[in-house]
Amino acid sequence: MNRTEIATLGEFGLIDRINQQFVNVLPQTIKGIGDDAAVIDNGGNEYLLISTDLLVEGVHFDLSYTPLKHLGYKAVAANVSDIAAMNGLPRQITVSIAMSNRFSVEAVDELYAGIKAACEDYKIDLVGGDTSASRSGLVISVTATGSVAKNAVAYRSGAKPNDIVCVTGDLGGAFLGLQALEREKQEFLANPDMQPQLDEQAYVVGRLLKPAARTDVVYELQELGVVPTSMIDISDGLASELLHICKQSNVGAAIFEENLPIEDATILAADEFKISHITAALNGGEDYELLFTISQADYEKIKNLSQVTLIGYITNDPTKVEFGTKSGGRFPVQAQGWQK
Amino acid sequence: MNRTEIATLGEFGLIDRINQQFVNVLPQTIKGIGDDAAVIDNGGNEYLLISTDLLVEGVHFDLSYTPLKHLGYKAVAANVSDIAAMNGLPRQITVSIAMSNRFSVEAVDELYAGIKAACEDYKIDLVGGDTSASRSGLVISVTATGSVAKNAVAYRSGAKPNDIVCVTGDLGGAFLGLQALEREKQEFLANPDMQPQLDEQAYVVGRLLKPAARTDVVYELQELGVVPTSMIDISDGLASELLHICKQSNVGAAIFEENLPIEDATILAADEFKISHITAALNGGEDYELLFTISQADYEKIKNLSQVTLIGYITNDPTKVEFGTKSGGRFPVQAQGWQK
Repeated sequence: MNRTEIATLGEFGLIDRINQQFVNVLPQTIKGIGDDAAVIDNGGNEYLLISTDLLVEGVHFDLSYTPLKHLGYKAVAANVSDIAAMNGLPRQITVSIAMSNRFSVEAVDELYAGIKAACEDYKIDLVGGDTSASRSGLVISVTATGSVAKNAVAYRSGAKPNDIVCVTGDLGGAFLGLQALEREKQEFLANPDMQPQLDEQAYVVGRLLKPAARTDVVYELQELGVVPTSMIDISDGLASELLHICKQSNVGAAIFEENLPIEDATILAADEFKISHITAALNGGEDYELLFTISQADYEKIKNLSQVTLIGYITNDPTKVEFGTKSGGRFPVQAQGWQK
Repeated sequence: MNRTEIATLGEFGLIDRINQQFVNVLPQTIKGIGDDAAVIDNGGNEYLLISTDLLVEGVHFDLSYTPLKHLGYKAVAANVSDIAAMNGLPRQITVSIAMSNRFSVEAVDELYAGIKAACEDYKIDLVGGDTSASRSGLVISVTATGSVAKNAVAYRSGAKPNDIVCVTGDLGGAFLGLQALEREKQEFLANPDMQPQLDEQAYVVGRLLKPAARTDVVYELQELGVVPTSMIDISDGLASELLHICKQSNVGAAIFEENLPIEDATILAADEFKISHITAALNGGEDYELLFTISQADYEKIKNLSQVTLIGYITNDPTKVEFGTKSGGRFPVQAQGWQK
């Protein structure tokens, strides 16, 4: 039998290959693989949303600088973010874990304390799961359900030319938080007596370790009566997610450097690490903000939302997804997100 | 900080400990952790069911004798079995996998061919998932949704004194299939030129590698208008599952050796391995049959079902869950199921 390395396809290529083999047959399945969450119609006025994530030690997290409580919280928040990205609100989660005997009961307690804190913050119920031994390391699988009014669901594929491109919160922080923690780890390995010096990076480290899913913005849009024409959560980086929206909506876009929401603390951290804060904002992952588009008719309704920034607009040429610099340059947006 | 080994609690102890920390708050959550699947009320005449399982290489399966296609099929069937155990029928699944670079694209194709075959057999849609690298081995996480009419849901906790105890299919085969494959593996390791000799064990090996979730029986009960008073699927062994039903229903039970459905091929295999076929039937895991109880009033309706065997009855003393031998002895039923 031939042997093809998975690396030759990449994660997205592998998912495409799997997806092509499956055709959904149930009338209840409105949207399967290919968006932030599956969309199911079980009757009534709301769709059921389902999202799932798998987190693997040594691939998605490093326990030498990730407290288990934060990890538990983040595992839930990442799935809630997927539900929010359909313009939905979360309801229930299941959590399965596999772990080696390196982990104690107290370690499991810490992990679940974080899961519980997230359940309380997002008002969701833990309704099931599985626990297992593993030969090495920790694996966490979270599946979340959610709901959204049928007339308010937001897919990646609904962006239209002239729509306004919006983003919540601020960008690039989580990526710089990762740099700060990786540097501390290397310095600790070189000199174990050293105390960590992360005060200056507290903001960006918090962005990595304590991400918040933007259900608050979903509530605000609901109150304002605004339904995004498209939506996605920013887990792999703004550039990568904008390309997803443009590809699935068959449109182009122009976004602008001067509009990118970047915190001062992120810019300072980027300077220290000699990384462009623009690159961090465009290609850094794990910010768990929402990227969405709205019709121009809704501009007046959302222009005063403090947590939403307008960064550009949708165009009709799918071959042109562009980034405009402050100096007037125009460059193609390129995905350099984490492909894990 | 104190360190308590997880082994001191065991899997069920750990699950109890986690469960105690969580209280469900949503009115939609009818049943969370503690049954075969969670039960959610999103309106309408049906409940949404959610079940999840995590399968870890080297813990739950051994790829030296488990074809990837069978593994994929079984991962789905095990979750469908959990949905069936609520007297429900499956709708959608999500499948997440983590795997090391030992696995090729062709291997992934094999795994998903089995998943697809199961989706077709059980008429379910694959609607999502995640793929990831792993540092070692293969991990598969499956979450299934299902539905059940609100007036037909069967919990573990509903058995009443004088109810009849029923089991589907036959028991003990999967456990003996495992013995056969383990023996072949050892002989192969000792002498790699040897050809496998599994013809005589074809039935029991098939029971292990190709389990069928008993949705057929759920359909039959529906047609007959019979709602089980309690139900559970047999993944850890008949004894363990009967104890779950009795504990959660606060009842006792008496089941009888002479009634246990055991195939001739299973008895022959048990003889060859010098294992009691009764022990295999009571304590062997992974048969994925259904154990359920019905009211005596429903006896006439189900007595002719070829796939259902009546093995005993429910009593009112929760301290007595008993097994009656052919020779007239009475012994307490004890769980020796796989605690993984």
